[in-house]
Amino acid sequence: MSRLSPKVDVAQPETPVTPVTPVTAGFSSTSPNETSNGNDPWAVFDSNASGGVSNNWAAQPEGTETGETSSSAWHSGHPQAYQGPGAEDDEWDEEWDDVKSSGGYAESEAGEGGAINRGGAHGSSMKIGGEAGPVWAYPDYQLDCVVADPKKGTKMYGLKSYIEYQVTPTTTNKPVNHRYKHFDWLYERLLDKYGSAIPIPCLPDKQVTGRFEEEFIKMRMERLQGWMTRMCRHPVVSSSEVFQLFLSYKDEKDWKMGKRKAEKDETVGVMIFSTIEPEGLPDLDLIEVEQKCEQFNRFTRAMDDGVKDLLTIGNEHWKRCTGPLPKEYQRIGKAFQNLSSVFNSSGYEGEATLTDALTAAGKTYEDIAQMVAEQPKKDLHFLMETNNEYKGLLGCFPDTIGVHKAAIEKVKEADKLVATGKITTSEKITMSKRASTMSYALQAEMIHFHTNRIYDYNKVMQQYLEQQVKFYEMVKCGNAVGRFWVGSSC
Amino acid sequence: MSRLSPKVDVAQPETPVTPVTPVTAGFSSTSPNETSNGNDPWAVFDSNASGGVSNNWAAQPEGTETGETSSSAWHSGHPQAYQGPGAEDDEWDEEWDDVKSSGGYAESEAGEGGAINRGGAHGSSMKIGGEAGPVWAYPDYQLDCVVADPKKGTKMYGLKSYIEYQVTPTTTNKPVNHRYKHFDWLYERLLDKYGSAIPIPCLPDKQVTGRFEEEFIKMRMERLQGWMTRMCRHPVVSSSEVFQLFLSYKDEKDWKMGKRKAEKDETVGVMIFSTIEPEGLPDLDLIEVEQKCEQFNRFTRAMDDGVKDLLTIGNEHWKRCTGPLPKEYQRIGKAFQNLSSVFNSSGYEGEATLTDALTAAGKTYEDIAQMVAEQPKKDLHFLMETNNEYKGLLGCFPDTIGVHKAAIEKVKEADKLVATGKITTSEKITMSKRASTMSYALQAEMIHFHTNRIYDYNKVMQQYLEQQVKFYEMVKCGNAVGRFWVGSSC
Repeated sequence: MSRLSPKVDVAQPETPVTPVTPVTAGFSSTSPNETSNGNDPWAVFDSNASGGVSNNWAAQPEGTETGETSSSAWHSGHPQAYQGPGAEDDEWDEEWDDVKSSGGYAESEAGEGGAINRGGAHGSSMKIGGEAGPVWAYPDYQLDCVVADPKKGTKMYGLKSYIEYQVTPTTTNKPVNHRYKHFDWLYERLLDKYGSAIPIPCLPDKQVTGRFEEEFIKMRMERLQGWMTRMCRHPVVSSSEVFQLFLSYKDEKDWKMGKRKAEKDETVGVMIFSTIEPEGLPDLDLIEVEQKCEQFNRFTRAMDDGVKDLLTIGNEHWKRCTGPLPKEYQRIGKAFQNLSSVFNSSGYEGEATLTDALTAAGKTYEDIAQMVAEQPKKDLHFLMETNNEYKGLLGCFPDTIGVHKAAIEKVKEADKLVATGKITTSEKITMSKRASTMSYALQAEMIHFHTNRIYDYNKVMQQYLEQQVKFYEMVKCGNAVGRFWVGSSC
Repeated sequence: MSRLSPKVDVAQPETPVTPVTPVTAGFSSTSPNETSNGNDPWAVFDSNASGGVSNNWAAQPEGTETGETSSSAWHSGHPQAYQGPGAEDDEWDEEWDDVKSSGGYAESEAGEGGAINRGGAHGSSMKIGGEAGPVWAYPDYQLDCVVADPKKGTKMYGLKSYIEYQVTPTTTNKPVNHRYKHFDWLYERLLDKYGSAIPIPCLPDKQVTGRFEEEFIKMRMERLQGWMTRMCRHPVVSSSEVFQLFLSYKDEKDWKMGKRKAEKDETVGVMIFSTIEPEGLPDLDLIEVEQKCEQFNRFTRAMDDGVKDLLTIGNEHWKRCTGPLPKEYQRIGKAFQNLSSVFNSSGYEGEATLTDALTAAGKTYEDIAQMVAEQPKKDLHFLMETNNEYKGLLGCFPDTIGVHKAAIEKVKEADKLVATGKITTSEKITMSKRASTMSYALQAEMIHFHTNRIYDYNKVMQQYLEQQVKFYEMVKCGNAVGRFWVGSSC
């Protein structure tokens, strides 16, 4: 695929669009104890901390019990709370300690009523800046990795089998091994941690039957590669501690310890916004925040529809191209060849030229049948895979946007809360600032999304059309194989 | 179609294969009174005088009542009976007069029990000769005609409408007008007269509804043209009085008189063989006759199967190419264009190149949809029409071959008939000579069929493949219209 570099001049994700504030890739210096467990003032903005699809909060009427608790959560907010790690880290953490309760949202929405740990345990610093607009701080070096060499492994004295993939990051060039369930673990961590701000697409489907079949393994590997490439491309995800652990753990002990640490990470859900610093960008007013959110919502929904439509029709086309159509060409080929052998049996002299040509045409049609049947793997496949990936990505936006909408609604309620003395004017300003930060994060994410989208669609459309041209050229020449009739230079 | 002259070197029907005895085209000098009505010694060979599909006679067990009558018919046979018109015409006719009864076959098989006129009223002379084998005597000039300019006519003060076609023979270049029912009349005459020896294919289907619709008229005209061309190509049919009448009647009176005369023609059914003269060819023995008949039977049946198979699959392919396939391309085109307009709404700068290209690709797919939908008319149509014509022709062979088989069976019975004193040895020899003549006629017809078949299939396959090559070249270039991505010289 890499040979098909797009001929159009678009900004590519390898080059940051307008990176203003490069951040040091790596892990934040924030210690696990810097925020207290379960107390999360940002949870008030969280529509679904565990990455589900509910948009409950934004939809909840005022004055319900959750409305009560949410306002108390806002109450404890602090304007300096999200100035990022560094010199002010200590202050930041002390301030989080002031928070007494995040209310019932996290619990009620995460379901199970369990105690969900929150707080910035391993939050990476996430800086946003930009003259033309808010963009994530892109690293100088674009991380990438290769997923390859699937091997069957066993455990429990051979009773249990699994497939292990070799993952080699371009940074270290040292391969590590991972099973699908490790990818799934990573996905869960990334979803918990970044899901409110960044669409974390699902992994390729789990499959129980046939999972040791070669075709399935190949397809899963290809999709895991696609998923990993997308995660590597994301400046925030790729620089996260958990992602780095996955790509470059030293040994089994390192992996296990890292896993335990990541699972204890409390900077998850909306807490992630507390780690975002919109550097050099002015606060946005609520109208602007709302407009941006609506714009992204409209766009992602429209693209979701478009992508799903393309997938539906692509699927039908795939089925036709691998099923009835080549069968038909095959039958045409057989009919020509059959007619040729009937003609041969005529006993009439001097028709060898016709029968030879009919046989050649018949064989050509059988070749065409095969070409037609194999073509989707050469072009439609990548178009479908890319759109499938985008379907997954776009499916994350309703949640992400839901978090933003909920925050916007809360800020809208703020005047009332001030009037009834439930929050102070300064707290109201803090809420507004937080919404502004969230909006910048969403805008940066959208810019990241658009850049990648343009790159990906340029690449896949170029490849698709190139392959189509090749295909028709090939079939054309195939037909010209009836060279007895058709003078051709093929 | 004429521009697509085949590049292969095959004998074409325009040039007689090995014409040994050119006959003067035109009408026989045999007068209407030369044979008596209803008395037809050849009827004994006739499996179905009216051109139906029954093969009764050949299948009938010996000793049935029809067996009786048939032997009496044979009884009255005469060796000089079929030496053709000319100097011996008078003798010939006198001999026919000896015949008292042809038995119940003609009546029972023609149905309705009516009096069916038989006898050589207007039989053309049909000579067969050839060094390499028996061939019809081909005329020096190949007759052809153009069916064109369909016009709506009315009669009964406008109460009845019909379509009249202009038929212009290349000989006179003077157009005559004919309605479908005139063609149908001609078909009936030719079938009655030549059906036992020459496959007379059916006319294009009658159709009651929609017969004034442009598409239908065009299609019918095209098929009438095909039918007329095939009849013109046949040396025996094209030189017949009735065919010449149809092509070049002077005025309404001439037409009406000619019609009446043709309807009274008694040289119909197996009587036609009495007009055939295998010039310079030795009598064939029965084994050879039977072998030839079996060979032709096998071949025509096999080709019938092959042609029907091709028609079935061609029909399915036609439906797919004009229905679901272009619809799918259209939907792909719409999906690309829709995605393009969604992308345009992103608010993100710098993707005009992508969206322009996506739109172009989408439009191309709509063009491809149209190309795909229109393609069958350009190639599959002629392949289907040709095969449809051949299906019609091949459908005539069972009857023709049935006549021959019945004759062979009769000759086989001859020994028994001689033994029981029902026929003389000389009459047995006559029967055998007649079978030999019939076999030569069948062989000449098969050579005519093969020559035309090779010519027709060369032409149609060449055209089909040329059009396919053009199509794929066009679609290839269509795809390359995504020239933003695909550098192409199209």
